[in-house]
Amino acid sequence: MFLYVGLVIVPVAGAVLVLRAHSGGPAPGAHAPSAVATADPFPKLLIALPVILLVCRLCAGLFGRMSQPRVIGEIFAGVLLGPSLLGLLWPAGYEWLFPPYLAPTLNILAQVGLVLFMFLVGYELDVGLIRGRGAAAVTVSQVSIALPFASGVILAIAMYRSLSLPGVSFATFALFLAVSMSVTAFPVLARLLVDRGLDRTPLGSLSLACAAMDDIAAWCLLAVVVATATNSSLAGVAVTLAELVAFVALMFLVVRPLLAKLVKSEAGQQVLLPVMVSAVLLSALGTQKIGVHAIFGAFLLGVVSPRGDGNVDRVIEPVRTFTMTVLLPLFFVYTGLRTKFALLGTDLRLWGWCLLVIVVAVLGKGVGSTVAAHTAGIDWRESLSLGALMNCRGLTELVVLNVGLDLGMISPTVFAILVMMTLVSTVMTAPALSLIQRIRPGGPRKAL
Amino acid sequence: MFLYVGLVIVPVAGAVLVLRAHSGGPAPGAHAPSAVATADPFPKLLIALPVILLVCRLCAGLFGRMSQPRVIGEIFAGVLLGPSLLGLLWPAGYEWLFPPYLAPTLNILAQVGLVLFMFLVGYELDVGLIRGRGAAAVTVSQVSIALPFASGVILAIAMYRSLSLPGVSFATFALFLAVSMSVTAFPVLARLLVDRGLDRTPLGSLSLACAAMDDIAAWCLLAVVVATATNSSLAGVAVTLAELVAFVALMFLVVRPLLAKLVKSEAGQQVLLPVMVSAVLLSALGTQKIGVHAIFGAFLLGVVSPRGDGNVDRVIEPVRTFTMTVLLPLFFVYTGLRTKFALLGTDLRLWGWCLLVIVVAVLGKGVGSTVAAHTAGIDWRESLSLGALMNCRGLTELVVLNVGLDLGMISPTVFAILVMMTLVSTVMTAPALSLIQRIRPGGPRKAL
Repeated sequence: MFLYVGLVIVPVAGAVLVLRAHSGGPAPGAHAPSAVATADPFPKLLIALPVILLVCRLCAGLFGRMSQPRVIGEIFAGVLLGPSLLGLLWPAGYEWLFPPYLAPTLNILAQVGLVLFMFLVGYELDVGLIRGRGAAAVTVSQVSIALPFASGVILAIAMYRSLSLPGVSFATFALFLAVSMSVTAFPVLARLLVDRGLDRTPLGSLSLACAAMDDIAAWCLLAVVVATATNSSLAGVAVTLAELVAFVALMFLVVRPLLAKLVKSEAGQQVLLPVMVSAVLLSALGTQKIGVHAIFGAFLLGVVSPRGDGNVDRVIEPVRTFTMTVLLPLFFVYTGLRTKFALLGTDLRLWGWCLLVIVVAVLGKGVGSTVAAHTAGIDWRESLSLGALMNCRGLTELVVLNVGLDLGMISPTVFAILVMMTLVSTVMTAPALSLIQRIRPGGPRKAL
Repeated sequence: MFLYVGLVIVPVAGAVLVLRAHSGGPAPGAHAPSAVATADPFPKLLIALPVILLVCRLCAGLFGRMSQPRVIGEIFAGVLLGPSLLGLLWPAGYEWLFPPYLAPTLNILAQVGLVLFMFLVGYELDVGLIRGRGAAAVTVSQVSIALPFASGVILAIAMYRSLSLPGVSFATFALFLAVSMSVTAFPVLARLLVDRGLDRTPLGSLSLACAAMDDIAAWCLLAVVVATATNSSLAGVAVTLAELVAFVALMFLVVRPLLAKLVKSEAGQQVLLPVMVSAVLLSALGTQKIGVHAIFGAFLLGVVSPRGDGNVDRVIEPVRTFTMTVLLPLFFVYTGLRTKFALLGTDLRLWGWCLLVIVVAVLGKGVGSTVAAHTAGIDWRESLSLGALMNCRGLTELVVLNVGLDLGMISPTVFAILVMMTLVSTVMTAPALSLIQRIRPGGPRKAL
């Protein structure tokens, strides 16, 4: 760790010294407000991106040591670098690192990263997990969506009057809150199971199946919510949804066979990488133009991409590595920069709402899944573990929340509250799971 | 080919249809000048990037079939999509694809791609090629730099009065022109040799050694030229160069051992990718702050990176793939967008200069290397082949030219002339080599 801190400090210190020594350039502290609008963001990106990458990696390492999934560390790194911590503790440093003229650049890189990430999520979605899973998975999954969804709507009734943005209909606000309560982070959950060697156990495969079903359900629901938010009339919503259905049909009936054919052909393999990247971007454009969000198209393309073929994996591997290591940290920081916990301030009422949202989210998803699993014939200990796992919201929730903020469905305040809920419900997953796993099988009822 | 054209046309057509059908969105042809400045470049990037990637790949494929290195096709693709062709034949399409508000985004992505590419160039620079190469390589390399360099200065005397920008000193203009005459494209040359199975022959290893030496010499010379251009006084130039030397020393004496230690440590390998990417960006920032160009820092970091270790190669592989496939095409298009052959227009005098530049460039580099090689005891046929290879300027020249345009050392007109020279001297390499290889050994003097 010292080694790579050294690797950063030496060049940075060198650059700063040079900057100060260099007579030709502007003084480091000089303010030139008129130049801000036209300032070249490239030099600033050259310093901001390394800081982002290294802080993310550092936090990932720290969280990894605390037996937490590393991605949670990266999510925290984003918040750390945002106005909620760096901006609060060292405003000058924050302003220097993320000046307003850098925002469009970070924004676009984060969006490209998000679109590529959503493609990977779709690509890694194993539909085989769901097929032939039997009643347990279907029941748990349906209940683990329905219960938090319903509790989200009830919560919305309470929150709408004081916390919704003007111009946002109750239906939109309630549906969005309901979806954000229902999310499970499939990638984080899979990571957690692998880290603990649970991925090949019955519990592991059941949770994965449920999470996969929840994932699909959550994206479908979110698409519906977005359609209601971007159309004022019910007819408009219907048109958007019809277009979306047509788009999905196009993807499955035309793009999927084309891609499969491409992968099999000799010539196709040489062009596979640029074609796949282009297809991801164009699909993202398709859903964006329909009026839902770009992420849906990218996710769909991932779902219809040919799998189980070493060629595709080999081509996608560098995209995955680059996206996860370089672009996704930018998304976390982009999210962190938008998260203003200061909006909650010292307003106890807002913190009360925040607490309520957390409790409802955890109870709705965790308890709902637990009870559903037990009803489906699974013992209490396993049911509790499943409940703890399904409560993990992580990255998926952040994607959903950003869509909500992008489209003006929620205010920055509600965004901050929901990010807080995401952090808490994600961080509690690993310790909760450890606690439950320590319970002796046979004496589990005490734990409830 | 039909297959992937189909893959593009279907989603694009789908998106366009949807765009037209969708009542909520703005009409496709609507002009909203006031919105241009604040328009979100992301949706446009989602269409422009696929077009760039696919046109680059298409051109690469076409040039590959003509026994040309594929990268030349990509360079042409950039020009095709620029104002010189697409902008001329279909101005409305060009405006639609590359609206002004997309320029900053393309710019920054191209710059990131260029910096990562220069790191790869440095990383792949095999210093072992040069060591113990003997008199021939050193002689040929020195002459193949000195002769075009001198001819560049002579050319500058002729061109300075009518073609230089006001405010650019003769020294800067002449040195820049001299460097741009001396460049050899190491990556393209290596590709050409591998494609023809020549890379393990004496000719192949000699040309690679010469090209590697030329590469280092060209970057050093360019750094000097940039230092003279950005400083008005000789003292300023000396300070910049002293800083640069200190930076190089820092890279070799501090960063190189640190990186080597990092690669060997267990913990280091887990963080190798973000640390390497961060180090590339910070080094680029270092040289940019010194007042030379960001590319030097990235190149230097590549040079000092630990090699011959499977770990580093494995970590760098995804960066290479992503950079070469996704980011480098953006650099070509960025260059193409800046290349305005229309500036030459119908002005016969300018076309005359263009022709003169091409002749001087080809003769200076090609004939210079040929004569030097023959003087060093290599037979005429091999010497001619070497001359043909060293004349290949490709991508490296484009990097140099962009630096010149960035720093205001050359006008857009001279830029266009030099891009034309680059295209001609790069494209002629493969056919010239084929022609020379067909000469019966023994009867070569006729070919001269």
